[in-house]
Amino acid sequence: MKRDYSLAEIAAFLEAELHGDGSVRISGLNTLQNAGAGELAFLANPKYSSQLPDSRAEAVILGSEQAKSFSGNCLILDNPYLGYAKISAWFTTASCQGASIHASAVIHASAMIKDDVYIGPHVVIDAGAKIESGCSIEANSFIGGGSVLGENCQIASNVSIYHDVVLGSRVRVHSGAVIGADGFGFAPNGEGGWQKIHQIGGVRIGDDVEIGACTAIDRGALGDTLIGNGVIMDNHVQIAHNAVVGDNTAMAAYSGVAGSAVIGRNCVLGGDACVVGHITICDNVMLTAKTLATKNITQPGSYSSIVTPMMKTADWRKNSVRIGQLDDMAKRLKRVEGDK
Amino acid sequence: MKRDYSLAEIAAFLEAELHGDGSVRISGLNTLQNAGAGELAFLANPKYSSQLPDSRAEAVILGSEQAKSFSGNCLILDNPYLGYAKISAWFTTASCQGASIHASAVIHASAMIKDDVYIGPHVVIDAGAKIESGCSIEANSFIGGGSVLGENCQIASNVSIYHDVVLGSRVRVHSGAVIGADGFGFAPNGEGGWQKIHQIGGVRIGDDVEIGACTAIDRGALGDTLIGNGVIMDNHVQIAHNAVVGDNTAMAAYSGVAGSAVIGRNCVLGGDACVVGHITICDNVMLTAKTLATKNITQPGSYSSIVTPMMKTADWRKNSVRIGQLDDMAKRLKRVEGDK
Amino acid sequence: MKRDYSLAEIAAFLEAELHGDGSVRISGLNTLQNAGAGELAFLANPKYSSQLPDSRAEAVILGSEQAKSFSGNCLILDNPYLGYAKISAWFTTASCQGASIHASAVIHASAMIKDDVYIGPHVVIDAGAKIESGCSIEANSFIGGGSVLGENCQIASNVSIYHDVVLGSRVRVHSGAVIGADGFGFAPNGEGGWQKIHQIGGVRIGDDVEIGACTAIDRGALGDTLIGNGVIMDNHVQIAHNAVVGDNTAMAAYSGVAGSAVIGRNCVLGGDACVVGHITICDNVMLTAKTLATKNITQPGSYSSIVTPMMKTADWRKNSVRIGQLDDMAKRLKRVEGDK
Repeated sequence: MKRDYSLAEIAAFLEAELHGDGSVRISGLNTLQNAGAGELAFLANPKYSSQLPDSRAEAVILGSEQAKSFSGNCLILDNPYLGYAKISAWFTTASCQGASIHASAVIHASAMIKDDVYIGPHVVIDAGAKIESGCSIEANSFIGGGSVLGENCQIASNVSIYHDVVLGSRVRVHSGAVIGADGFGFAPNGEGGWQKIHQIGGVRIGDDVEIGACTAIDRGALGDTLIGNGVIMDNHVQIAHNAVVGDNTAMAAYSGVAGSAVIGRNCVLGGDACVVGHITICDNVMLTAKTLATKNITQPGSYSSIVTPMMKTADWRKNSVRIGQLDDMAKRLKRVEGDK
Repeated sequence: MKRDYSLAEIAAFLEAELHGDGSVRISGLNTLQNAGAGELAFLANPKYSSQLPDSRAEAVILGSEQAKSFSGNCLILDNPYLGYAKISAWFTTASCQGASIHASAVIHASAMIKDDVYIGPHVVIDAGAKIESGCSIEANSFIGGGSVLGENCQIASNVSIYHDVVLGSRVRVHSGAVIGADGFGFAPNGEGGWQKIHQIGGVRIGDDVEIGACTAIDRGALGDTLIGNGVIMDNHVQIAHNAVVGDNTAMAAYSGVAGSAVIGRNCVLGGDACVVGHITICDNVMLTAKTLATKNITQPGSYSSIVTPMMKTADWRKNSVRIGQLDDMAKRLKRVEGDK
Repeated sequence: MKRDYSLAEIAAFLEAELHGDGSVRISGLNTLQNAGAGELAFLANPKYSSQLPDSRAEAVILGSEQAKSFSGNCLILDNPYLGYAKISAWFTTASCQGASIHASAVIHASAMIKDDVYIGPHVVIDAGAKIESGCSIEANSFIGGGSVLGENCQIASNVSIYHDVVLGSRVRVHSGAVIGADGFGFAPNGEGGWQKIHQIGGVRIGDDVEIGACTAIDRGALGDTLIGNGVIMDNHVQIAHNAVVGDNTAMAAYSGVAGSAVIGRNCVLGGDACVVGHITICDNVMLTAKTLATKNITQPGSYSSIVTPMMKTADWRKNSVRIGQLDDMAKRLKRVEGDK
């Protein structure tokens, strides 16, 4: 695959102001500190400005302020980090599979598969599934009956998509992810055990969604689990049945949404942040790492619970045990105040 | 698949009292709010009673109290939710695979496979494994040597079952689940590193167990890891080596049990609730979400740790830092009290 | 497979002092309590000494102190637990696959595969991958283009290894694990959405590493994610892009390392312990279960946060609500003190 461009080509794509020699060839990206000949670096965080003079990068993406004191080849952008993100696609190391269907793939006769797709070895596609143009499905993945992959979806190896799951366009699903497994629905059976509630709903996922490795998105009990456009999910994320995740919300590793909870748009869930079932979180909410959201949030902003300061375990033990005495302490404090 | 029944048929199955027209046809289930023509809804939680008059459901499952003021078709049950759960099986959207073994499956000559099973494409079954009547194993799953699936087990796609794992009857395992991987057993090797302890035990799982997507149940170090009858596990659950989980215990997403811990019967572990190794939890214990159980629990009831009230992050910071001063505060409070 | 040895053979391998009859045959390992005829047990923790007289084990590995009062067959070692760990390899129940490549495996013509490897059914190995001597790759696993498995690696079923991932020698990867998926890298696109940052780096893993089931190790954004020699990871672990984990560090289930964090050597992360991004943890640090490490740690030792004492939920509620009043309480306490 060609991975060698002139700096001028890159400047044009990014609509960046080019200083220096536009004919130099760029064959890779790297950090300011590690970049060498032929590599393009970027300076997004001013705290790394001191690395600029010593960088051996072929060229640097930076802001106009930093550019003033820089004599090397550079691309000037208001948002250098976004520029780096955009150009990263030109240097991906992922092999781009040509359109083909491997002979070992097992595709049901009733599945509808567009011509220009890649379907890898041992992929299995069940009855009535629909794979749109430009999709890529890597080795050993499974697409259940009636499920739909919109245009240009990228499904990595060993992905499991159950029946009646609908993905929009440009959805990327990483290995080990599971979409459409049964929600965790059981009714007490009156005899100490559990009666399974068959999960009749499906999953609908918008466009431009990224789903991390080992992430699980359950199907709805009745009606669908819904993931909006532009949602990004890290690894080990959990989406329970009938949850709703709004457009462009970001979920870090181990973050989870319990059944029927509704998360707004442009929210950020930190690592291991969880939302209990049947509550609503409005748009533009941040939950810091390990927070458990236990009630509706109606005002944008950052919310926290649980996380307490890290300290030496010995100190922690001493303080931690006092938490069990807090109510008593509060009452005693009130009494002492009253006594005066 | 037929999915169209008379209300009278359903009433008979549920042993429900039928009010209205038993000849109406029911082809689906839905919520009170969303149900339309041909759909059966249910009213389990009285707080949704107000939706009853406006529901366009063909019929409703409800309690006798709610039925008094309802003139539509209905099925009266003491426990409408359980009724809904039971009838949900009639409307499952999962395709029921006929008995067949796909030509691409690789089955060791010494494996014993009953006639009426479904084995999907690219399934691999190793030496000496035993698959009982009515089992279904979806695409790309692996069953290790000597493992046993009791009658009517349902194994989804991309499931990994190692060697010498025994499942009872009617066990359902979702995609990405791993049963029988090595427990996390290592001894310090005296030189700063680790000596692996080979995990010689197996896993034994009872009847009517559900195992969620991406859930991992490790094999025992010596002797087996044990999961009782009727246990239900959500996604991302962790069961370490030689743990014991009692009958009908429910484990929500991310809940985990460390090595050799024993969990009683009819317990409920909330999301992310974890139990440390080598302790015992008695029957009928609830651990709320994110609790870390650190010592034996000998009395039934609900236990908590960790979760503190959610608040604005700015407020949290102010309060959280005081946790590190708690021991000091407690001592000062005592001094102030003594001073009087 | 032969699993029957004389006690003398075992003594010689472990360099243990043999008391009793070296000719007895040992065909299995078990605990002191459960061992019977033909089984070797061990006594590592003195608190189980009381089980010694009643044990029906054929022989016992124990320390010299405990041996004094024991008249049965025994192997005396300074570290009986390490002895048990070492000998466990002789009794593994995992079947040792002979060197062979299953006909259904799909191996790219440009992949380099040594002669004495086991490649199971439906394994897929992509262009330019390199599989060294003695490797074993179980059913349905995927090895991406250009990835390298050092000598004697053991890859379980349904493992996903992306392109350009390098494993050292004797790396063991359990089912459902994913190595080399994209790191969670996105830049705000200025329009409320996210611009994906293609993850151009790879993953490099040292020798003698164990990677648990459903564990995810992401590839680097620029440059590699690095896992040292002798690192052991339990199930459901998360390693984000460009993290560095030092030699012999142990990570329990659900522990995670966020992007670009650096963990030292010989650290132990308890279950669910997480490290935020871009910080550094020095060598020999213990993080207790569920701790969130939020800043650099420069001194060896044990650190904690979050975990508070477990109590009845009703008591917890009373105390927990006071955490939101702590800052106020601290100020009032100060005022009361000042008043005197």
